[in-house]
Amino acid sequence: MITLSSDFGWPYPAAMKGVLLSATDARLVDVTHEFPRQDVRAAAFWLREVLPWFPPAVHLVVVDPGVGTDRAALVVRAGEHVLVGPDNGVLLPAARRLVERTEGVEGIEVFEVAYDSPESNTFHGRDVFAPAAARVHEAGHGSLESLDCVSPIGDYEDLTFPEPAVGEDGADGEVLVVDGFGNAVTNVPGAVLDDRYGEPIRANDAEATAVRAYAEVSPGDRAVTVGSHGNVELAVNRGRGDRAFDVEPGDPVCLSW
Amino acid sequence: MITLSSDFGWPYPAAMKGVLLSATDARLVDVTHEFPRQDVRAAAFWLREVLPWFPPAVHLVVVDPGVGTDRAALVVRAGEHVLVGPDNGVLLPAARRLVERTEGVEGIEVFEVAYDSPESNTFHGRDVFAPAAARVHEAGHGSLESLDCVSPIGDYEDLTFPEPAVGEDGADGEVLVVDGFGNAVTNVPGAVLDDRYGEPIRANDAEATAVRAYAEVSPGDRAVTVGSHGNVELAVNRGRGDRAFDVEPGDPVCLSW
Amino acid sequence: MITLSSDFGWPYPAAMKGVLLSATDARLVDVTHEFPRQDVRAAAFWLREVLPWFPPAVHLVVVDPGVGTDRAALVVRAGEHVLVGPDNGVLLPAARRLVERTEGVEGIEVFEVAYDSPESNTFHGRDVFAPAAARVHEAGHGSLESLDCVSPIGDYEDLTFPEPAVGEDGADGEVLVVDGFGNAVTNVPGAVLDDRYGEPIRANDAEATAVRAYAEVSPGDRAVTVGSHGNVELAVNRGRGDRAFDVEPGDPVCLSW
Repeated sequence: MITLSSDFGWPYPAAMKGVLLSATDARLVDVTHEFPRQDVRAAAFWLREVLPWFPPAVHLVVVDPGVGTDRAALVVRAGEHVLVGPDNGVLLPAARRLVERTEGVEGIEVFEVAYDSPESNTFHGRDVFAPAAARVHEAGHGSLESLDCVSPIGDYEDLTFPEPAVGEDGADGEVLVVDGFGNAVTNVPGAVLDDRYGEPIRANDAEATAVRAYAEVSPGDRAVTVGSHGNVELAVNRGRGDRAFDVEPGDPVCLSW
Repeated sequence: MITLSSDFGWPYPAAMKGVLLSATDARLVDVTHEFPRQDVRAAAFWLREVLPWFPPAVHLVVVDPGVGTDRAALVVRAGEHVLVGPDNGVLLPAARRLVERTEGVEGIEVFEVAYDSPESNTFHGRDVFAPAAARVHEAGHGSLESLDCVSPIGDYEDLTFPEPAVGEDGADGEVLVVDGFGNAVTNVPGAVLDDRYGEPIRANDAEATAVRAYAEVSPGDRAVTVGSHGNVELAVNRGRGDRAFDVEPGDPVCLSW
Repeated sequence: MITLSSDFGWPYPAAMKGVLLSATDARLVDVTHEFPRQDVRAAAFWLREVLPWFPPAVHLVVVDPGVGTDRAALVVRAGEHVLVGPDNGVLLPAARRLVERTEGVEGIEVFEVAYDSPESNTFHGRDVFAPAAARVHEAGHGSLESLDCVSPIGDYEDLTFPEPAVGEDGADGEVLVVDGFGNAVTNVPGAVLDDRYGEPIRANDAEATAVRAYAEVSPGDRAVTVGSHGNVELAVNRGRGDRAFDVEPGDPVCLSW
């Protein structure tokens, strides 16, 4: 199985599928091609949340503002999963989460893909990463060492998310991403709401209610809840939390109770 | 075969696919994840039009504004098809249409899915409905009674579409949905146009022409035609009918000829 | 394998998938359903760029502003590939490119699909083209002559792209399409940049730099580069070229160096 993720929208993912299907009979599964354009951090966040639900697979990831420069192409082994994509940190949070969720795996292993004069400088998804993903899939996650096109490296770009400060009467965090419903996902762990459901909570300058489900407040009302990723989310029942709380990715969030 | 439908956009459908693929080898087919957000009626309409074209399958449907509340999770058997989704009516019009199109099937059968403390209160698509769909698929549509996680129920939310009033010199109906081209789909049956093709027709305050094909009027001109669902549609050749007729879902439509 | 391409957005592609899956076990692969609405030229361009990356397949293409009129339905054989879609030129550039890329194939062969009173006049993707694609797939590309529903024809709509004028000190071309990143793709061959990388270049009234990779200019700066299709592209690093150069499809582009 090979999953595909990118910020390409259309029609470029189809060229990658053509390349993959010319080289392998693997099942292809789209994760999404709608990541915010060239937003490496957002893609890294969502991949960390989504990929661990998959069975062992090769995950082809192309969010690549540095395409055509000398940034490396990586293959990252995370137990029985393998991630393929650019060396800009986008693969790392998901790879580490996959290892955390797998017993008996010590850590991630990072390889560099050798490539030379690809057909284009603007579409390595088609010309570098998809061919590499196909070769990795055909070799199998246990045989990366046998591929002459990959070699282990120790130096690569990392990407981590900021840590919140949680205190007795509140938490200081940050909006990491906004989902398609407009829910503003923060880096504050959902456990801070454990004893506060049904109570008022303040997020920056806005009053809201701590709830377990969106529909526990009236349509249009602000809610602070725990999203499916386990983090605190600023939301509105049947509306958009990002607008009601006036926040976007990267903004600070001060919760007080 | 398992089809997937939701109003999730991205990236949440991928988590559902991961859950399904971890539990079954079934072919997965996306119907759409672009249903208007939390619009149960629009989803119910389009599912009724689209699902009957499929061979027998399990249809996973998640348009679920009540996620995390005590609304039930349903499995609906419609002949050889099975629909899985929330108890808000979204499954019912499609299920009944599937039964109408199948000889020898008496009616729909509705079951409730038992679930307890899912991993999240905000993403039952991943935590309740996808696991249920996988189990139903593995059991087969004829063996739902053998599953200990489902049990027949008689009380569930229904959803029906309003009936139009058709007279000698016109019809009073309603816009049910607007498609991506901007065609405003009404609840008026297409047969009302049978003897009127090529003739002028009035829709609310706008003059138009009754046509069999969009291109029978000039680009930019208003047309009243019959869509692929069999209902009267307000359209514009190479343009948007919803704007030209100034209507949106739920608006009344008065046709006169 | 059957690929699907359209300008339908949602939910109509799902009805085509249902029809296909009711008639064949073929693997289905979405190319895109997001082609600009009823823009035959844009679809023709992207199909020419994308389809040659696929292994031999049946390619179902529905961008069809003339649906319901007397325009023909075509099947075009291009070596081991077969394209199915409306007679408006959308299939031709891709078919010819597929033949150019295949040794030993002399040219395209065009057939007309016989169809009579389809279920709708507004959705031939579901009622004419998908059934034809399924039959063609089941027959195989070498056996089209044996199908009673298709017959060779010599007269069909063609579609070609305008030729640029390339001189010593510049080139006069046209914007063919804009991709989702905002890159404005012209008809000027990328080879004109061969000796000019790193140098200033003027596109209409805007100053830019000729580069091999977007990231060779600063974020927000204008670049002229060669896209993955081999044509000159007007771009902005981490921004939209169409806005920065103030162009849209069909606009003239005057490059001078």
